Amino acid sequence: MRVFVPFDGQTPKTSLAGTLTSDERQAFAMASLRDVIQAITAAGYEPTVLATTPVDVDVPVEVDTRALTTAVNDRLATHTPPVGIIMADLTLATPTAIQRLCAPEADVVIAPGQGGGTNAVVARHDAFRVDYHGVSLRDHRAIAADIGATLTEVDSYRLSTDIDTREDLKEVLLHTDGAAAQWLTEKGFQLIVKDDEPVLSRAERT
Amino acid sequence: MRVFVPFDGQTPKTSLAGTLTSDERQAFAMASLRDVIQAITAAGYEPTVLATTPVDVDVPVEVDTRALTTAVNDRLATHTPPVGIIMADLTLATPTAIQRLCAPEADVVIAPGQGGGTNAVVARHDAFRVDYHGVSLRDHRAIAADIGATLTEVDSYRLSTDIDTREDLKEVLLHTDGAAAQWLTEKGFQLIVKDDEPVLSRAERT
Repeated sequence: MRVFVPFDGQTPKTSLAGTLTSDERQAFAMASLRDVIQAITAAGYEPTVLATTPVDVDVPVEVDTRALTTAVNDRLATHTPPVGIIMADLTLATPTAIQRLCAPEADVVIAPGQGGGTNAVVARHDAFRVDYHGVSLRDHRAIAADIGATLTEVDSYRLSTDIDTREDLKEVLLHTDGAAAQWLTEKGFQLIVKDDEPVLSRAERT
Repeated sequence: MRVFVPFDGQTPKTSLAGTLTSDERQAFAMASLRDVIQAITAAGYEPTVLATTPVDVDVPVEVDTRALTTAVNDRLATHTPPVGIIMADLTLATPTAIQRLCAPEADVVIAPGQGGGTNAVVARHDAFRVDYHGVSLRDHRAIAADIGATLTEVDSYRLSTDIDTREDLKEVLLHTDGAAAQWLTEKGFQLIVKDDEPVLSRAERT
């Protein structure tokens, strides 16, 4: 199955602006992308990065500068199902989690994101299209119902967690040892306990 | 399998103080507790509520005013394994999610919570004890390793999401139609889209 991995190569991870410099955000986003590619490949699928700029990875890259929804719907319209769409910031994804996403027989399988997002989709119905605005999970349920497609939602913490904010970096340190976790560790990040709460801390550079 | 459901009946859901009145927090917490009890029962297990005050539910209640860790460890020490511990604010729990928690053969099964918490445990090793302070997931991994117990972590969004904050209420409206979701809807809460973001809104009382 062909799996597209949308990736913003231009200004990735702006919500980490207070935590990482612009160059660091770029490096962290690339490490995350490589983790996701690795998980998809190890699960037995063929990832293609769908990026807003050329990116240096060892799988095919298609550059598309259009908005996310437009670029993804173009792929859904021009490829024979099944087609997978898995976001590049699902840093916690494992091969097992990807296989759980791809296992159900439903016409549309969705991994919901926290807050009503849609973090991953497998579309087996050729009329299914995405709309990533607003509460996309709710919209995707409605779109599937409109075209008479069956829909299954996958209950995965790893796929529900897109790594976007400083808080999310704690999850990377707790749940993976991939490229992104290694990058954070090399940059001095660690998880400490302060006032009985887990807090992300960064060692001073010496 | 006996499953204990710790519940703070005295001052539940204080982190919802800006969103719900004290009476409303109590009512919402009770609705959540009933949802969790229902999911555990439908999954085929026997829940016992482990509460800081007497609570009105139709399953057994044990009142224990001690700290959470102490009260839970007392049950682990005095009951023959397996013993389950499932938090009362896992409002999104379904029978399927509970069954996934109870299925693995490992000595200790954990459903991690966001931020390094431990939202649910199944202990099949009689030396396993909990410690809910700090980054409890990390501590529980270490405790299991210390006693030579095998450990499996269950990848479940529903079990990773404890309903604590205003943001979390969106997840209840998106992912369940149980007692807690019905209570929120009756109280006028709904999920709307504002500036392309999902926002919790409460209808004015008329």
